[in-house]
Amino acid sequence: MKTRVSVLGLGRMGSALARTLIKAGHPSNVWNRSPDKAQPLAALGATVAANVREAIAASDIVIVNVTDYAASQVLLRDPKVAQTLRGKLIVELSSGTPREAREAARWTEGQGALYLDGAILATPDIIGSTAAMILVSGPLAAFTAHQETLATLGAVSHVGADPGTAAALEAVGLSQLWGGLFAALHAIAIADAEGIPFATLERQWKDGVPVIEGLVADLIKRTAGKRFAADAETLSTVGVHTHALRHLADISRIHNLDPGLTRTYAAHFERAVAAGHLEDDFAAMTQFTRIAPEAAPKAADGTRPSRHT
Amino acid sequence: MKTRVSVLGLGRMGSALARTLIKAGHPSNVWNRSPDKAQPLAALGATVAANVREAIAASDIVIVNVTDYAASQVLLRDPKVAQTLRGKLIVELSSGTPREAREAARWTEGQGALYLDGAILATPDIIGSTAAMILVSGPLAAFTAHQETLATLGAVSHVGADPGTAAALEAVGLSQLWGGLFAALHAIAIADAEGIPFATLERQWKDGVPVIEGLVADLIKRTAGKRFAADAETLSTVGVHTHALRHLADISRIHNLDPGLTRTYAAHFERAVAAGHLEDDFAAMTQFTRIAPEAAPKAADGTRPSRHT
Ligand SMILES: NC(=O)c1ccc[n+]([C@@H]2O[C@H](COP(=O)([O-])OP(=O)(O)OC[C@H]3O[C@@H](n4cnc5c(N)ncnc54)[C@H](OP(=O)(O)O)[C@@H]3O)[C@@H](O)[C@H]2O)c1
Ligand SMILES: NC(=O)c1ccc[n+]([C@@H]2O[C@H](COP(=O)([O-])OP(=O)(O)OC[C@H]3O[C@@H](n4cnc5c(N)ncnc54)[C@H](OP(=O)(O)O)[C@@H]3O)[C@@H](O)[C@H]2O)c1
Repeated sequence: MKTRVSVLGLGRMGSALARTLIKAGHPSNVWNRSPDKAQPLAALGATVAANVREAIAASDIVIVNVTDYAASQVLLRDPKVAQTLRGKLIVELSSGTPREAREAARWTEGQGALYLDGAILATPDIIGSTAAMILVSGPLAAFTAHQETLATLGAVSHVGADPGTAAALEAVGLSQLWGGLFAALHAIAIADAEGIPFATLERQWKDGVPVIEGLVADLIKRTAGKRFAADAETLSTVGVHTHALRHLADISRIHNLDPGLTRTYAAHFERAVAAGHLEDDFAAMTQFTRIAPEAAPKAADGTRPSRHT
Repeated sequence: MKTRVSVLGLGRMGSALARTLIKAGHPSNVWNRSPDKAQPLAALGATVAANVREAIAASDIVIVNVTDYAASQVLLRDPKVAQTLRGKLIVELSSGTPREAREAARWTEGQGALYLDGAILATPDIIGSTAAMILVSGPLAAFTAHQETLATLGAVSHVGADPGTAAALEAVGLSQLWGGLFAALHAIAIADAEGIPFATLERQWKDGVPVIEGLVADLIKRTAGKRFAADAETLSTVGVHTHALRHLADISRIHNLDPGLTRTYAAHFERAVAAGHLEDDFAAMTQFTRIAPEAAPKAADGTRPSRHT
């Protein structure tokens, strides 16, 4: 007999989660604010709970997937609901910030429940396949105890004990996603305008992938070690990048591409150069991703808090 | 006996090119506007030419590496110099736009010379190693005839017969480079602010690389086939991206990150959504990389030229 699971929230994603669990043989209790969305799941064999309390009471593991943390709080912080949480595992899969996740963890653990926070890097249609990346953070023991059940939903991985880690790494993933995709959109526009065959573009992109992967790994290592000054291992300086940026800006202008990307890169470089980092390793740029650093709040002793703490 | 090579322009890059050729055993004739920069190369065994004509006359293959195409024209289009070009191979390695490369090819071929245009995706210090990516475009026969000599300079590849291809692919490479690096800078800032260990960040980034490589390959294929409507193979729609962007924008705002990147992404999405592409495949975005498309010149028949021609 597979573990019984309750699912609160049956929107597009919540319905996909519940459907996947039911199809994998998990007895499921489901609830949604608008009851009609529970019907297709009832048809698949789910028990429809009359209210949130009933849904929580039915299972040891409760998956929550609503619009955001505010909606989740409306459901769980009702005092009558809160008192049903003791001893349960709450798996919060609604999207939000790391701060919201940490606050939810504190509150939920305060009710005597275990709490895992997850970020779904996938669309509803691929839930249940290994293509669905789901990051989970919170106490490792709670994760391992229910890993088999959670793995039904996709490629689920535990990314850290801090409940905010999943949401933070979701942001990392989204940053990486659009960095790549928007660069590709602009590269496609350039290739298209210049009559470069798409096969040539694809080959060139593929060749570049490991090069950039290596540069990013180096960037992370240098930042971790605060090795910002150019040294014998330096692959390129801020100055070399600043110089080369003109070439991309030129061709972007010629083809009327949105100048937002190259202007943003230029603004970052300008902050670094103004602060005297022209000859430093590119890794020095990690200190210039924030705008108006002079506006940052001062510490009590009048100094500015370090940006790498 | 290795092929004799002449190098015009001995700045940081030109000196590295000449030094590498000399060390590999190529008899070399060098010239620079400011004669002092030729001295270190003379010490290595190069013959210093008294003027551009003399440098060109000395070798069948002439590498040009000055600041830009304008500087290159100052050197080569002097009538007395131009008449020495017949029968030579000019390898133009100065940076510029595809248009400048094509114009230079036309003019040079008009003098009875062969012309190859190259883009150096490397810094002077790594010239001569396989890490130095050098893209070359122009007539394939001219490339193959001198491939061995050119390979002395780095990982040289012929990317197309159109002399503009190397410069266009340089822009593609730069777009990919900064798309990746700036996404990584922002990811590092988020991880740092959220207390995510750098090792966790590095692992997450590594996991994301093949996912995004796949999405970009799909994007290029869909664009090539103009398959912009969502279909059974669609990985994500414009709407899904637009929705998720709010999460990255939120966390970026919380940590005071430069909003230029997320705003630029948002502006692209807004153009697509305004044009009715909310439910289309993400590939529809390739039609919205240009600003003010309504300002694009109209074709003679009053219609707007396709952006994919
Ligand atoms: N869809 C995706 O591709 C995707 C991908 C990754 C992550 N996610 C995340 O998954 C979560 C759900 O997304 P979705 O696509 O399923 O959204 P959705 O289709 O809009 O569904 C939203 C769900 O939240 C419920 N809800 C909202 N406010 C509520 C409240 N105050 N009280 C009770 N229930 C409330 C809705 O109930 P009603 O039916 O009664 O309105 C509905 O079940 C979001 O955090 C989203 O960011 C979605
Ligand atoms: N450095 C890099 O990391 C790098 C990387 C990739 C590509 N590139 C490209 O390589 C080319 C050269 O770069 P670089 O770094 O060597 O630049 P650089 O050190 O500034 O040298 C510029 C060279 O151009 C010459 N020059 C400029 N204007 C001239 C004119 N009107 N007539 C004659 N000679 C002129 C200079 O001669 P004087 O010595 O007399 O001033 C010097 O030899 C550029 O197109 C650059 O974009 C460089």
